[in-house]
Amino acid sequence: MPVSLENLASRCNSTVYGDAQLLISGVSSLEEALGNEISFISNRKYLSKLEHTNAGAIIMSALELEYFLSSYPNKALNAIISTNPYADFARISQYFFEKNNCIDKIYGQNIHACTNISKDVMLPENINISSFVTVEAGAVLGNNVSIGAGCYIGKDVIIGDNTFLCPNVTIYHGCHIGKNNIIHSGVVIGSDGFGFAPDLHIQNPEWVKIPQMGIVIIHDDVEIGANTTVDRATFGKTIIGKGCKIDNQVQIAHNVLIGDYCVIAGCTGIAGSTKIGKFCMLGGGSQISGHIELADGTIVSGGTAVTSSTDKGDRITGVFPAMPHKEWEKNAAIIRQIQNLRKQIKALEKEFSKMKRH
Amino acid sequence: MPVSLENLASRCNSTVYGDAQLLISGVSSLEEALGNEISFISNRKYLSKLEHTNAGAIIMSALELEYFLSSYPNKALNAIISTNPYADFARISQYFFEKNNCIDKIYGQNIHACTNISKDVMLPENINISSFVTVEAGAVLGNNVSIGAGCYIGKDVIIGDNTFLCPNVTIYHGCHIGKNNIIHSGVVIGSDGFGFAPDLHIQNPEWVKIPQMGIVIIHDDVEIGANTTVDRATFGKTIIGKGCKIDNQVQIAHNVLIGDYCVIAGCTGIAGSTKIGKFCMLGGGSQISGHIELADGTIVSGGTAVTSSTDKGDRITGVFPAMPHKEWEKNAAIIRQIQNLRKQIKALEKEFSKMKRH
Amino acid sequence: MPVSLENLASRCNSTVYGDAQLLISGVSSLEEALGNEISFISNRKYLSKLEHTNAGAIIMSALELEYFLSSYPNKALNAIISTNPYADFARISQYFFEKNNCIDKIYGQNIHACTNISKDVMLPENINISSFVTVEAGAVLGNNVSIGAGCYIGKDVIIGDNTFLCPNVTIYHGCHIGKNNIIHSGVVIGSDGFGFAPDLHIQNPEWVKIPQMGIVIIHDDVEIGANTTVDRATFGKTIIGKGCKIDNQVQIAHNVLIGDYCVIAGCTGIAGSTKIGKFCMLGGGSQISGHIELADGTIVSGGTAVTSSTDKGDRITGVFPAMPHKEWEKNAAIIRQIQNLRKQIKALEKEFSKMKRH
Repeated sequence: MPVSLENLASRCNSTVYGDAQLLISGVSSLEEALGNEISFISNRKYLSKLEHTNAGAIIMSALELEYFLSSYPNKALNAIISTNPYADFARISQYFFEKNNCIDKIYGQNIHACTNISKDVMLPENINISSFVTVEAGAVLGNNVSIGAGCYIGKDVIIGDNTFLCPNVTIYHGCHIGKNNIIHSGVVIGSDGFGFAPDLHIQNPEWVKIPQMGIVIIHDDVEIGANTTVDRATFGKTIIGKGCKIDNQVQIAHNVLIGDYCVIAGCTGIAGSTKIGKFCMLGGGSQISGHIELADGTIVSGGTAVTSSTDKGDRITGVFPAMPHKEWEKNAAIIRQIQNLRKQIKALEKEFSKMKRH
Repeated sequence: MPVSLENLASRCNSTVYGDAQLLISGVSSLEEALGNEISFISNRKYLSKLEHTNAGAIIMSALELEYFLSSYPNKALNAIISTNPYADFARISQYFFEKNNCIDKIYGQNIHACTNISKDVMLPENINISSFVTVEAGAVLGNNVSIGAGCYIGKDVIIGDNTFLCPNVTIYHGCHIGKNNIIHSGVVIGSDGFGFAPDLHIQNPEWVKIPQMGIVIIHDDVEIGANTTVDRATFGKTIIGKGCKIDNQVQIAHNVLIGDYCVIAGCTGIAGSTKIGKFCMLGGGSQISGHIELADGTIVSGGTAVTSSTDKGDRITGVFPAMPHKEWEKNAAIIRQIQNLRKQIKALEKEFSKMKRH
Repeated sequence: MPVSLENLASRCNSTVYGDAQLLISGVSSLEEALGNEISFISNRKYLSKLEHTNAGAIIMSALELEYFLSSYPNKALNAIISTNPYADFARISQYFFEKNNCIDKIYGQNIHACTNISKDVMLPENINISSFVTVEAGAVLGNNVSIGAGCYIGKDVIIGDNTFLCPNVTIYHGCHIGKNNIIHSGVVIGSDGFGFAPDLHIQNPEWVKIPQMGIVIIHDDVEIGANTTVDRATFGKTIIGKGCKIDNQVQIAHNVLIGDYCVIAGCTGIAGSTKIGKFCMLGGGSQISGHIELADGTIVSGGTAVTSSTDKGDRITGVFPAMPHKEWEKNAAIIRQIQNLRKQIKALEKEFSKMKRH
């Protein structure tokens, strides 16, 4: 259903420039938007695109609006004036997306006939549980929780209000999932941490399993991507802080502590007992060693292996630059022997200073 | 059931040298083949193995056959003369493998009693749906589709003819899977892309979720390995082209476009909006940055982080060479300070040229 | 139920120092242990912690005990004297952990009503099969096997005694799992290896699938972490040796052979046909190339790409050191051109020796 520009602006505490009653039916990119759609601009270098867009309205900052109006005095424009156009575009997108959402609105208890829910589990007023879901004894499910087909909820698991589990998610016993979480398919939470004591006699060698007795706690407003894994603590807790966003195929080991509002891109691995501060950003495919501490606001570039602790606000990179393979063959050979370069330089310096002395 | 060499040759548009009526019962390696089995050779350096093999027949090129006959004039040989012995060996293997295949032939509608299939889904003439499968409303299943136990097929998903989903695959709503696909267990297709707009006020910080409204399209003849993930587009489509072969634990982010006939080895990650051309080959564990373009025929070595676009036919490598740990400790220390080496060289050059001038 | 120190000592073939009848109720860390709990110490540098711990007893070596008693002659202490305190702590932890274990003890046949078990499968005396499990024809399940909800057991799979499959595990047809295995959720065993023969005509290009006809064999006492994948062999077997411990999100390709008692950390990838010796340790995120051989006892540092075979006991590293991003930008530029450094040095050496000759 179309909604007025004024209405949309009020949803993100912003104001309207132009026709406040204009009806908007959806969101789109500047290039593809139609007259009843809204788009956004957050970077002056794209401002010229506004000349040619068909979008009915634009979300933009007051500064850009002023700049645009002075540059293109004859162009008509409707706008939502925002302090954060990208974030407000996201909020308005969410508004329209809910209209045709993949997640059914919950009214009452929608429990598929073919589920295995322990009799002692209290079902809240509004809940969706799809087919072939198992919920073990002692689990506590919040209001407006949705559990996709084939999920497994272990004993004594707690899931907060409004949390959505996509199909085929596995939550081991005792773990706590906060409110407003989105957990994507194939995620495993609470699997055993990787802990073994070596007892490697010649006669009867063994890696003796250290029982993983702790749990995982995931705070509110977290999203976890497909096939990501989070191991339970040996003792105590593996913790993911409030508002964290974690991509697909991330591996989080036992006793890792992740502060609030971190963003962790796909294929990243974090080894055991490492502490990640608040507002950290880890690039895709990064590997964080165990037992270190990344300070608040640390940024790790994609593909970087971080082996020691960082200071607040550090931006860390360690990626071998990609190059034509033939170049690499030569360069890699030099790097293997780079001590020789240093020795040659030292020898030259020594001989040179000897010569100067004569 | 044994089949004549002639018959096998006709299946790959090839011709027979030797006994066309010889009966063949299976395929094997040159070392292990018995007299009723066929093997292949595609590299002259292994030609001497033909002297001692017990294989009843060999798939080989006309050139190698001629070379062999001139080198070993007294050795009897039956052969299928092929322009691509390895590919024809694969085709003949497929023929024999179907005889004892893991996938039951489909005759009629084989639907397990315990499934959750939306009533509006039309079931084709021939289809296998195993136990504990969920198929949501609006899904369209092609003829000869097989769906393994525990799979989830979301709303409005389209699956083309002859496609096989192994157990525990998850396909989110709206995604399209082509014909003749093989999707291995644990694969997740259509999970949300990783998109959040930062709105990090001190008071009430938030990574605002950008709704992922697009879909995933997978074209015909694609194989996707176990636990690989493919995210849906923000707007529009994430696309995997015709004939692509993707290994296990690959992560493909939102809005990635992959051209036809690419091969992507295990543990590779491709970040958002990157475009991969046709016939590209990505080695295992490679990490491809977002918003770049790999031209047709690009080859990326395993373990390489690619951070910028490539030209047609580039072969790109960027791997720190592995070495004894003690060597690495010294070399890594030099690399951390490699600017010093350059400075020392510059200083030497400067002093040296000063000296020459005197 | 509390148990005497003497009893615990006998469980790990150790002896008691102090009060053998002291009752112990659990395990904990030195810092958190209460008077009825036992802890351990395996490193002299933590010995001073014993002064302040409340733990009722300590597992420690005879050497450390003697050293402690001479250093703190007035401090009372109960101890289990162990040749391997960490391993014995693990064993004693297992004893207490079983008391409140996540895995129900098996008495009789506990088969959930909603499963799909082929009629020809013989069920042993003691077995747990949870909800929504599929077991195909010809499968053989050992005594005391537990199969978590949503697992898939393919045709002719063999699972040894006391093996535990967590929920949502997939085992393809024909694979053999040994005794006392723990397989975590999301694991896929026996998916097709990544094998295709290129037949890339311009007219009708194709990567021709090579049927993967082999199996996977996993020996006894193996643990496999969440979302790890192990591909079946093309011909023959992919093998994981006795006592191996494999972490989450590891990818093991077709025809890989892993010797006994290896430890493989998370996110590691091992490419096809590679042979890993016994007692190897692979760090997290390492990438092992195909068709190479790591000798017994090889240690690979996390994040290392290993591209060639190793000798016995090698410790191999190859990680680009992480550094501040601005430093990296400069250093990466030099590394891209490192041949120039060598050329400059060579030029200097040449000119220098020419000068000396004059």
